[in-house]
Amino acid sequence: MNELALVEMLRKMAERSMPKKSPGGAGLILGIGDDCAIFRPRPGVDLLFKSDQAMEDVHFRRAQSARITGQRALARALSDIASMGGDPLVCLVSLSIPATLANSWIRDFYKGLLSVAKTTGTALCGGDLGHSEKIYCDIALCGSVPRGKALRRDGAKIGDAIYVSGTLGKPWDQLISPRLELGRKLRGRTTSCMDLSDGIALDLHRLAKASGVAAELDSVPVHQGATLQRALHGGEDYELLFTLPANRRAPADCIRVGTIVKGKPGAVRFQGKPLPAKGYEHF
Amino acid sequence: MNELALVEMLRKMAERSMPKKSPGGAGLILGIGDDCAIFRPRPGVDLLFKSDQAMEDVHFRRAQSARITGQRALARALSDIASMGGDPLVCLVSLSIPATLANSWIRDFYKGLLSVAKTTGTALCGGDLGHSEKIYCDIALCGSVPRGKALRRDGAKIGDAIYVSGTLGKPWDQLISPRLELGRKLRGRTTSCMDLSDGIALDLHRLAKASGVAAELDSVPVHQGATLQRALHGGEDYELLFTLPANRRAPADCIRVGTIVKGKPGAVRFQGKPLPAKGYEHF
Repeated sequence: MNELALVEMLRKMAERSMPKKSPGGAGLILGIGDDCAIFRPRPGVDLLFKSDQAMEDVHFRRAQSARITGQRALARALSDIASMGGDPLVCLVSLSIPATLANSWIRDFYKGLLSVAKTTGTALCGGDLGHSEKIYCDIALCGSVPRGKALRRDGAKIGDAIYVSGTLGKPWDQLISPRLELGRKLRGRTTSCMDLSDGIALDLHRLAKASGVAAELDSVPVHQGATLQRALHGGEDYELLFTLPANRRAPADCIRVGTIVKGKPGAVRFQGKPLPAKGYEHF
Repeated sequence: MNELALVEMLRKMAERSMPKKSPGGAGLILGIGDDCAIFRPRPGVDLLFKSDQAMEDVHFRRAQSARITGQRALARALSDIASMGGDPLVCLVSLSIPATLANSWIRDFYKGLLSVAKTTGTALCGGDLGHSEKIYCDIALCGSVPRGKALRRDGAKIGDAIYVSGTLGKPWDQLISPRLELGRKLRGRTTSCMDLSDGIALDLHRLAKASGVAAELDSVPVHQGATLQRALHGGEDYELLFTLPANRRAPADCIRVGTIVKGKPGAVRFQGKPLPAKGYEHF
């Protein structure tokens, strides 16, 4: 497919999965086809920005399902919007592909990506196409949150309870369900929140360091079939990790895993012993 | 440099080149370091979105100046914001590099990028880092424009005069000056506008097609040392191409190159002969 035909196919696919306009004219005004997309935000919001790369032989293999690869590429970025308590608005998808890549791979990749775009109300508003030896994708995502209500990772207090939103150590080749609904529920409630992309050992270290506190992990909910090591140090779980004041109730299905304590900022202990801040390093 | 050290270096470099907060608290609230950046937009704006890839051996070579490579990577995306009449707000920079790449390349790349970020008031608010065999960069940019004032490419009318903002056929390895000031001046004045990234033959075809009209080119201002062929079909000029009603005056330094006429949508003639819609195809 040449660039023009491919862009035309993507424009039509994007239109079919487009979220409906909001009352008051907020929403996507101009999508794929001009120099920029135009989006009208609702009044009274803060914007959230995130980008995430997905590279062949790092995050996925070409032989895997292109549909799941596309789904995961967008869902990983959506997980970051969820962790800030946000609503996704628009995404830009930059894709570089080998000239020899089958058209069906491209179509299935966008089908997977647009399926999660549709269910989460994310508009695919543009991107860039290029050629490269390996498949390379970068997704930029913009979301919004009511003004001043974003969930940050730097407010955990000594005595807070630590929670995760699900089991840890999931396989790396499955659909991701970004925790957008939970993130919205947590607005105004958490003292800190982030998503688990590099394993709880490393991510809890980051949260504790940003908050200037230490953490004690009592236990972690291990995904069926996974080892404890994988649950602690594996990545790609895309659950939320958050802290609540001890007297505040957590949403259903969230699991308490430990407590924020006084100590060296960023220090994490697991069942009484120091837990090294090692996880999946994408870099 | 490991990921942590690199992110810390980038965070400090980004902070030093950060635009000042606007009155009323609009601006970047949280930059690099959390799951997402947080940006508070001014009331009454539409947002503009664009992403642009820069790949080694396609858009630049490693042996070229890393500083100019970084400058051009951001300036190319800024040119699209300019062509919509926008003000840049924030950018996300995703970068993948070989493990063996010298630290000085990375630093110089960001120095170049941040120099243009600073002069244009663009905040580097985040991104993603990864490893790859060749250097790969994708920049996502968000800008704003007063509500309803974005310059689109689809409104050219028969009888409109066609203008460009400078000479065409520039070399591909020089600093780019995105025409942001001109774009702002053109708000509410042009019937259509876009930036010249793939050569005027192809880009004017696109503008005319989007507007449902044809175009007659009389002459083009050829950059010193360039051929007419390069000025017509070469890319990477990053000047603005726009149309004005015949009775409206163009800003100083803009050069009239032709007229919008009745005809097959997208058809372009140069000095009376059909001009093929061929240019630099990035894809």
